[in-house]
Amino acid sequence: MTEYFELEWQKFQKTSEEAKLAFFQKEGRIFDILFARQFERKQLDFLSNLATKIRLVAKRKEGADYLRRLLTHKKAMLYFVQPSTRTYLSFLNACHILGIKTSDIRDTFTSSEIKGESSYDTIRTFSSYVDVIISRHPEKDFNQKAAWLLNSTDRPIPVVNAGSGKDEHPTQALLDIYTLHRSFEHRGGIDGKVITMVGDLKRGRTIRSLSFLMKEYKNMKLYFIAPKHLMIEEDLRSFLKKSRIEFYETDNFASVIAQSDAIYMTRIQDEHDNDKEKTQSSYDDFSFTYEHLSILKKDAVIMHPLPRRNEIDVRVDSDERAVYWRQERNGMWIRAALLAYIFHVEKSILDV
Amino acid sequence: MTEYFELEWQKFQKTSEEAKLAFFQKEGRIFDILFARQFERKQLDFLSNLATKIRLVAKRKEGADYLRRLLTHKKAMLYFVQPSTRTYLSFLNACHILGIKTSDIRDTFTSSEIKGESSYDTIRTFSSYVDVIISRHPEKDFNQKAAWLLNSTDRPIPVVNAGSGKDEHPTQALLDIYTLHRSFEHRGGIDGKVITMVGDLKRGRTIRSLSFLMKEYKNMKLYFIAPKHLMIEEDLRSFLKKSRIEFYETDNFASVIAQSDAIYMTRIQDEHDNDKEKTQSSYDDFSFTYEHLSILKKDAVIMHPLPRRNEIDVRVDSDERAVYWRQERNGMWIRAALLAYIFHVEKSILDV
Amino acid sequence: MTEYFELEWQKFQKTSEEAKLAFFQKEGRIFDILFARQFERKQLDFLSNLATKIRLVAKRKEGADYLRRLLTHKKAMLYFVQPSTRTYLSFLNACHILGIKTSDIRDTFTSSEIKGESSYDTIRTFSSYVDVIISRHPEKDFNQKAAWLLNSTDRPIPVVNAGSGKDEHPTQALLDIYTLHRSFEHRGGIDGKVITMVGDLKRGRTIRSLSFLMKEYKNMKLYFIAPKHLMIEEDLRSFLKKSRIEFYETDNFASVIAQSDAIYMTRIQDEHDNDKEKTQSSYDDFSFTYEHLSILKKDAVIMHPLPRRNEIDVRVDSDERAVYWRQERNGMWIRAALLAYIFHVEKSILDV
Repeated sequence: MTEYFELEWQKFQKTSEEAKLAFFQKEGRIFDILFARQFERKQLDFLSNLATKIRLVAKRKEGADYLRRLLTHKKAMLYFVQPSTRTYLSFLNACHILGIKTSDIRDTFTSSEIKGESSYDTIRTFSSYVDVIISRHPEKDFNQKAAWLLNSTDRPIPVVNAGSGKDEHPTQALLDIYTLHRSFEHRGGIDGKVITMVGDLKRGRTIRSLSFLMKEYKNMKLYFIAPKHLMIEEDLRSFLKKSRIEFYETDNFASVIAQSDAIYMTRIQDEHDNDKEKTQSSYDDFSFTYEHLSILKKDAVIMHPLPRRNEIDVRVDSDERAVYWRQERNGMWIRAALLAYIFHVEKSILDV
Repeated sequence: MTEYFELEWQKFQKTSEEAKLAFFQKEGRIFDILFARQFERKQLDFLSNLATKIRLVAKRKEGADYLRRLLTHKKAMLYFVQPSTRTYLSFLNACHILGIKTSDIRDTFTSSEIKGESSYDTIRTFSSYVDVIISRHPEKDFNQKAAWLLNSTDRPIPVVNAGSGKDEHPTQALLDIYTLHRSFEHRGGIDGKVITMVGDLKRGRTIRSLSFLMKEYKNMKLYFIAPKHLMIEEDLRSFLKKSRIEFYETDNFASVIAQSDAIYMTRIQDEHDNDKEKTQSSYDDFSFTYEHLSILKKDAVIMHPLPRRNEIDVRVDSDERAVYWRQERNGMWIRAALLAYIFHVEKSILDV
Repeated sequence: MTEYFELEWQKFQKTSEEAKLAFFQKEGRIFDILFARQFERKQLDFLSNLATKIRLVAKRKEGADYLRRLLTHKKAMLYFVQPSTRTYLSFLNACHILGIKTSDIRDTFTSSEIKGESSYDTIRTFSSYVDVIISRHPEKDFNQKAAWLLNSTDRPIPVVNAGSGKDEHPTQALLDIYTLHRSFEHRGGIDGKVITMVGDLKRGRTIRSLSFLMKEYKNMKLYFIAPKHLMIEEDLRSFLKKSRIEFYETDNFASVIAQSDAIYMTRIQDEHDNDKEKTQSSYDDFSFTYEHLSILKKDAVIMHPLPRRNEIDVRVDSDERAVYWRQERNGMWIRAALLAYIFHVEKSILDV
């Protein structure tokens, strides 16, 4: 980024949280999708219902064709310079569902960066050809900066954060919420449920986002299950206390399985760990085994953001309480809902 | 693949040939497209006629638009981790013809494999977003395994083998059959024709698949022309004898040209040969030269699976008996026919 | 390329300029888009007006849908073995606008070249599946050769040169002309205007193409502003003299800003310069600064082919005379116009 923009950006960074969230809105609606915390209960419910409607309408060919004609005039840029098969495919097929045409850049070598172009100019270039930029980038602030920069031009288009560094991944949070919403649809909704989160709670951003969003729901009870050195961090702990959410931390997974309504498993992200003594097998206590199925509630669900390694026995997959494959598909539906919302066609869908 | 699935897979591998072919069917139709030997005469004729119908209907804009609307609600995954321009483009454009939306992964770096995911999970992930997986993979068994795994889930989708290692490449066999079918349409069909296959008969999988399929036709006469060390292998020889197909092996190409109805040239695949003494020029006797055109029958055809090196003089290209470029296009039409069959819209096409 | 074709190609190369341009025409229309000099004033005006019509029609959903249905039966190949985000995205989205289905090859590793295939065969292969090849290639003559080769087959399809080496980039010239056309639409058109070109005039092919096209316009006045070692080359100088176009060369940028109607900035392409003493800052005199805005005519325009480095202060971007971002979008519109022309649907657009 050029020096001029860098200074302006630093000024913006110092504004209040409230001012920032307002900046990424237009006409009282969320414009850029950057943080999980942009979504309030009302919107979470709305998007979940919209996703379900899209899912049901798409089942029949006539319905699928109706959806596909809604946004034929829109074009999306998928800028995925950080590899991510799952999120990429999910967004691409969400675009397909609504008839959005796509362009993609999946590595940096095809980019003009080698010619010395600033990332500001690269983003403006993308915005010249399309109507929305869906971006996954290893730099923590990249997507937020991109949205901020485009908002200062005379042709602002929305930016959707499809994952930025280890920080934010708001559409993952949305698909987790949607999966809970769907799972508890006939059990009074998410309010009052017991959610158990297991694994790498320190580094896993899905856990963080989901936990922060729990404040939008009533009477939640959360269990955090992790080895001590991978337990949730202090900022989340403070947040939960301040928000008066009931929560417990322990490394005894077996003790809480029977009382959980949802068990959210995560992968221990030790790919880059120096401490080679902590092998995968030392995390066996934080795995969901075939035997655990027998103590799990009949109407509970097992979730996982995927990819998994050994945290869930593959034999669990065929149990109907294992919803992680459905959760993956939910990502496509909720992203389609989000794109429909961004382009103001939600009413045309709900009225079908 | 996880240990659990590996054991189950080994069990499956030990079942009979018949049981295997049945496993990859649903409701009396071929579901997964994995082996050339899945196709019987009836299906070969049917798909050939369907391909021709698609080709003719697509000539006019209204026809092309009719075809393109048939499968607008379907999504395909093109998983091509082994490079193949020709097969990739052919399948992609076959999808375009029928309005199927596509996602593609063309290298392994964008995949989740680096995060330690099993290939089982990768395939299930793909299946979450699409309705068919078209896969080309260097591992011999990969595509078959993928189909087998998906059939054990509650959301099985068909897998199309677009080439797996040196083993099977069923849609290449289909396009070869379709090219013979089209070439002899006004000469009584394929039955009773003399087919000469030239070049690397040991390693070329196209030759093997095509030869095996010859048992579906009557009164065929086959010539195999190759240097001794590249001649067909014993298993094919036994098969031909058992199937009572008339065939001859020789290294004298010139002697059979005049009596051939189709000459199928192939590339000597010596890229990785250690024996550097066998240079390309030492294979000159297994090339189709400009001079050969004068002794070739007036209504014979020259085929080649492509890519070629020096096996066919480029000046032959403009002779109307050279059908290898048409053969390449036939690949697109027969793949479109196959996709139409997979998604049960063949009737909507034939009734046009 | 095989020896046979190489000899034929050399023969073709020796034909007259006139014969060459005629060779790339069919039925009195330009067929292959290879050189900026293929376009005469009449065509430049026609394509500019067509681009404007497309741009206006696409503003409304019904209009966008009308355009998108025009070429649903056509398929394009984007062959971009030389990286170029901008040109790639521009062509891809131009295809999207008209409903053309696309296939792309963006690196050489996925190609059959590794199997020893000639580039002639590669191009013929592409032509088997699609209706137009849009090609960007580092070799100077590649695209021209490709067009020439396909014209000798029984299934010729047009080739569009999307940049070949340092030589020709005709669609960049078209978009520059279109930008001037649009900018001076209400000021009597391009004729009689003062155009100032700044920067690397020796290596920049955009400058060369645009300067050559200036002979199609009346009473032009050109200023070339560059450091001495990057000034225009003798062949362009001779051309301008012969064509009686008024032009001046100087290194004093400031002196001509006030009288310019268009200022065309370009990047100093010193990425591969050995002379490391010439740093970017030594080219400061060839930059458009924020202060320059105050001496620029009220209705002048600032252009740039992009990507830029420091030649234009980012604060200039928000001035309404800065049209380089619009110029970038113009590239998409004029390429859509060109594709509409290639496939003979221009009348269906102009009659809307």
